[in-house]
Amino acid sequence: MTETVDATRPNGPEAAPPTDWNRVFRPHAVAVLGATGRADSPMARPLRWLAERGFSGHVWPVNPKYDELAGLPCFASLDAVPGPVDLVLALVPAAHAPDAVRQAGAASAAAVVVFASGFAEVGTDGAELQHELVAAARESGVRVLGPNCQGIYYAPTRLFATFTAAADRPLRGSSGIAYVGQSGAVGGSVLDIAAEQGLDLTAWVSTGNQADVDLTEIGRYLAADPEISVLAVYAESVRDGAAYERLAAEAAAAGTSLVVLRSGRSGAGRRAAVSHTGAMLGDDTAFRLVSRRYGVVLVDDVEELLAAATVLRGQPRPAGRRIAAVSTSGGAGILAADRCEGHGLALPELAPETQDKLSRLVPAFGALANPVDVTAQLFNTGERAFGDVCSIVCADPSVDALLVLLTMVVGDEAADLAEDLTAAMSGSGVPCSVVWLAGQDRTTRARAILREAGIPVFSSIAVAARVAGALTPDRMPDTAPGRAPLPWLPEAADDLDPATDGGWALLDAIGVDTPASVHAGTAAEATDAARALAGAGGTVVMKAVAPGLEHKTEAGGVRLGVAAERAAAVFDELATTVASLAGVLVQQAVPGGVELLVGASGGRDGWPPVLTVGLGGTATEVHRDVATALAPITPGDAHALLRELRCWPLLAGHRGAPGVDVDAVVEAIVRVGAVVARRPDLAELEINPLIVGPTGAVAVDVLVATRTP
Amino acid sequence: MTETVDATRPNGPEAAPPTDWNRVFRPHAVAVLGATGRADSPMARPLRWLAERGFSGHVWPVNPKYDELAGLPCFASLDAVPGPVDLVLALVPAAHAPDAVRQAGAASAAAVVVFASGFAEVGTDGAELQHELVAAARESGVRVLGPNCQGIYYAPTRLFATFTAAADRPLRGSSGIAYVGQSGAVGGSVLDIAAEQGLDLTAWVSTGNQADVDLTEIGRYLAADPEISVLAVYAESVRDGAAYERLAAEAAAAGTSLVVLRSGRSGAGRRAAVSHTGAMLGDDTAFRLVSRRYGVVLVDDVEELLAAATVLRGQPRPAGRRIAAVSTSGGAGILAADRCEGHGLALPELAPETQDKLSRLVPAFGALANPVDVTAQLFNTGERAFGDVCSIVCADPSVDALLVLLTMVVGDEAADLAEDLTAAMSGSGVPCSVVWLAGQDRTTRARAILREAGIPVFSSIAVAARVAGALTPDRMPDTAPGRAPLPWLPEAADDLDPATDGGWALLDAIGVDTPASVHAGTAAEATDAARALAGAGGTVVMKAVAPGLEHKTEAGGVRLGVAAERAAAVFDELATTVASLAGVLVQQAVPGGVELLVGASGGRDGWPPVLTVGLGGTATEVHRDVATALAPITPGDAHALLRELRCWPLLAGHRGAPGVDVDAVVEAIVRVGAVVARRPDLAELEINPLIVGPTGAVAVDVLVATRTP
Repeated sequence: MTETVDATRPNGPEAAPPTDWNRVFRPHAVAVLGATGRADSPMARPLRWLAERGFSGHVWPVNPKYDELAGLPCFASLDAVPGPVDLVLALVPAAHAPDAVRQAGAASAAAVVVFASGFAEVGTDGAELQHELVAAARESGVRVLGPNCQGIYYAPTRLFATFTAAADRPLRGSSGIAYVGQSGAVGGSVLDIAAEQGLDLTAWVSTGNQADVDLTEIGRYLAADPEISVLAVYAESVRDGAAYERLAAEAAAAGTSLVVLRSGRSGAGRRAAVSHTGAMLGDDTAFRLVSRRYGVVLVDDVEELLAAATVLRGQPRPAGRRIAAVSTSGGAGILAADRCEGHGLALPELAPETQDKLSRLVPAFGALANPVDVTAQLFNTGERAFGDVCSIVCADPSVDALLVLLTMVVGDEAADLAEDLTAAMSGSGVPCSVVWLAGQDRTTRARAILREAGIPVFSSIAVAARVAGALTPDRMPDTAPGRAPLPWLPEAADDLDPATDGGWALLDAIGVDTPASVHAGTAAEATDAARALAGAGGTVVMKAVAPGLEHKTEAGGVRLGVAAERAAAVFDELATTVASLAGVLVQQAVPGGVELLVGASGGRDGWPPVLTVGLGGTATEVHRDVATALAPITPGDAHALLRELRCWPLLAGHRGAPGVDVDAVVEAIVRVGAVVARRPDLAELEINPLIVGPTGAVAVDVLVATRTP
Repeated sequence: MTETVDATRPNGPEAAPPTDWNRVFRPHAVAVLGATGRADSPMARPLRWLAERGFSGHVWPVNPKYDELAGLPCFASLDAVPGPVDLVLALVPAAHAPDAVRQAGAASAAAVVVFASGFAEVGTDGAELQHELVAAARESGVRVLGPNCQGIYYAPTRLFATFTAAADRPLRGSSGIAYVGQSGAVGGSVLDIAAEQGLDLTAWVSTGNQADVDLTEIGRYLAADPEISVLAVYAESVRDGAAYERLAAEAAAAGTSLVVLRSGRSGAGRRAAVSHTGAMLGDDTAFRLVSRRYGVVLVDDVEELLAAATVLRGQPRPAGRRIAAVSTSGGAGILAADRCEGHGLALPELAPETQDKLSRLVPAFGALANPVDVTAQLFNTGERAFGDVCSIVCADPSVDALLVLLTMVVGDEAADLAEDLTAAMSGSGVPCSVVWLAGQDRTTRARAILREAGIPVFSSIAVAARVAGALTPDRMPDTAPGRAPLPWLPEAADDLDPATDGGWALLDAIGVDTPASVHAGTAAEATDAARALAGAGGTVVMKAVAPGLEHKTEAGGVRLGVAAERAAAVFDELATTVASLAGVLVQQAVPGGVELLVGASGGRDGWPPVLTVGLGGTATEVHRDVATALAPITPGDAHALLRELRCWPLLAGHRGAPGVDVDAVVEAIVRVGAVVARRPDLAELEINPLIVGPTGAVAVDVLVATRTP
């Protein structure tokens, strides 16, 4: 089996019949179509495991070549099985899969797992076959998991509807952690490594090409399952933003922690993802912002996915960004401080009372501030003080999380330490991670004790710091669940057609200031307009208007500081410079200020629209100083957004210069956010520059693009 | 023992006598002062290990309380031992250490290892004792390793002059990797983890407080040792830049790879490092630039230190930044692509011929471009094609390094793969790393096979990508060893005194353009100067001159666009605004252009001076767009430096705007670099802004600070 392909689905899941997922995860009967007698084939595993590992429902192998398989009677066809079937495993070649789906439908099964490769991931012919597969599913009223997937393992019912080699070891499934992802290979790694760490998964689903059922649909079922406390998701593409948002919202409401590893974000990753899945990736920014709104933990590596799930399973999530490091080695503590700060964490100095308490336990040549260095000598006294040190540190009100760094504490001493630490952390309300920099062969029992208690053990300071950073909640936006709704919607803009009325009319309708301006169709009109707008001794700005002219400055279509007496000559110059000139916009000159960009991209593929705020002007791409948020946005969030910018000091007042009218910028951001949220036909709305001075913010240029919603 | 303290050394190593380090690492006789009979004490380890683990020289325990220890005759005092002594291990309390040093001197030993804590790391009293220790060493002509250190392990002579628990397991010492670092705890972790991986270290030294001997001195000895091919260094502070540069240069000349883990770079890390070591950290920028000049590999984590050493021990260093990923899982390949790009690596698409060859081995639903996805099905054929796939990929001329990602390949299949991969990589000229995402218990033998071949095995894609990035050589500067010397030195500036002549005179002397300017002491002089400099209808710039006035703009001391008739009034205004006005500089107005900053900090603590180039003006700190290089610099390197800036497009020409005179900027950078390199009394020289237009670059303001060299 290869990885997964997420091709266009004819009749998407919205067209799917209502599905009773309990019939899939807690089936009374499973039929194995195409069950094989070749015991060494991976495809023999599902039947053998269903027969031998405690599944309590009926298991019916189907293959006309055999009378018996895995000690069970084997049937010639699905309609020959002696009872109703809930779940069908189709271990048949790709070409036979649509027929298997039809048979499953005839047997009134709820779902079919199609394992075979050879569908959309291999090109046009395969995509055609995948199309046929989904059509068969819709006709038959049966749901399809896959194709090109590795199936389901669900511990509570001992359902081994998978062939992954990772399941080929004793599994208890008591961790409360579930995995769902397109990739069965990545999933297999998670299952195997978790099992080695004594944390084997409670549920495991590979959704493969997602021709019908996708990971958000499975994820929502598992997030509501009381057996599951953490849902770990691997996603190569998240095509349907609304479905992802629904999953995130339902998991948050159910109190199930959601950890997501998303791939394909780099250029090469995207190339691989495209060639690999045949699907364009969704918008990463919207994905990140939606994740933040619902408190989803985002990670970047398989190891981090499992580590974050381990923490979330057994420990509280940190309340803030402040972490304390307790180390047996000053050097390791310093390294941890470096790395934690690199991931946005702060290491506050511990309170004097805390340091005072610590000083009674820690030798004089240790360190008490944070990082705390207990020194290896702590262990030479035989007093087992390490747990007490950690208790004291966690009781400090400035500590949101604890990172423990251990060097050469090994053997029995290590096991004692693990027990003491586990006891100290229990009920502390503070989550803890451990980095153990010593051979695993000398710390095996100690590591097992910690993991059993839900404390992850890392070999890498960098990875531990990264996971600690990922687990720390971002500032929740005002639009997070349970917060106040937005106060204002720009109904005035509802009747405008931006395609014909243009961006200026839109800005007027939503109440964003623009410079007084007049459209001039002739040189004479330009002179009149300039006289009216320039004021005594003043100047105007003249901008060419022409079909398709979007970047006016580069095209030589913008003239600043034009005195009224020059307006006619400039009009004529613009008519020469710009092809198909349709006229000239004569604008009042705007006093200097900070030039910002305020833009919005309308939601695609079910994602909410995204606001972009940044340093504007022609050098926007050079400075790359932007921040993003979901639209609509509250004034408080808009203010926070501006503070994320590197150029915030220019707005707040920098090196003696006075600040600008931040409230006016906030107001403009809120209004732009409100209108894109209200009008799904707005694909793009960009003000650049929005010139903000000591009083007021004026949109000096605007660009609007629409699309059919 | 705690971590190390690197306090001020009275009589630094330059005052030390010439040292025969062979007497330390290959001693004929070792005396153990204060040897203990308490067998369970860590302090009993050195004697027991020297006696029992194959050291071939004499071992003389010294302690009046015993007649015999570890099966060896024990002596009452050092002068009672029956022969010359090369190395003394002082297992005595801190207060007795100076006396131990004097006894060692009397016995003509080469060096003493002082293990005790209680010196500079515990405060003033300890610092005093450390002072006394070094004084004793200088008087006695003996060198001191430590105090507060964990000593030496040197495998070729089976010298166990350490008590680290990490040495308490069978060690062969065949890896050719040496560790030297202040921290014995971090070192212990490296030794232990390396040993578990079958790569135990050949040499291991903890230098502790470095009261006398520091890690650069030990490092230089080990770098020249033919038994050592890789030197792994952990440094909390690198106080002496010249010593570090000497180590880096000698290691490069000897062909010994140097990997350095430096800590204490973050704010909290620095606080910890300061409280911890009592020493201010050196300049991190100069450290990084010197490391780059000599091809030192810099890492950020203990795990990375060992992993980089593993690669450098057994494999060639990559020639460039292009990496190929070969994976058994498309998902893992995509994740690896994401992470590799995040660390500055490129994943080029493989050549058509390469893909053609691969297509004969890889199933149709795999991927051939890069990442290569061989699919798990490759292993179902029984043909062992994985090694061939890797050989084909490595033969592609666009591949500098290979990253192999394995998911659920386990058991015998895993061992076969490891053998095939090892064979394929041997002689390929391409370095390889493996990320194995499966339980260690099911891949133990396979991992051992790979590590034995010098191929590191990671559990984390992120860490593997980070190490691959660290191993990739940066562009070598022209000042790297063996390159051309600099052509030009500004001798004309030799006689200037910047403290009295000022920055403008210095710029004139080195040939950096400045605006024509006149110092005006009165309002009338200002008018005359403005008339002379402004030209018809033009304006001048007027800048206040006053003692201690460094940031003129913020102080309201700069007036732009002053017409000649306003000059006198502006002079009077400045006299009111700026305290103690000493006059006004009247300058020709400089036409608009890109405002850059060109600065240099003179070398401190033996580090070479550092050039800083960036976007200038008053918003320099807001944009934080700077690049750094060592001074002096060649035109080629200066050009490369400018290309590192985010604002490079503004210089090269951006969105239709023409480019500026880059050569003029390059020339200014070269000249500033040359003068700070030539004049060690220049602590700081900063031009901001250097205004660069279509022709020429003009320094509009300059700041100079000097110091006693």
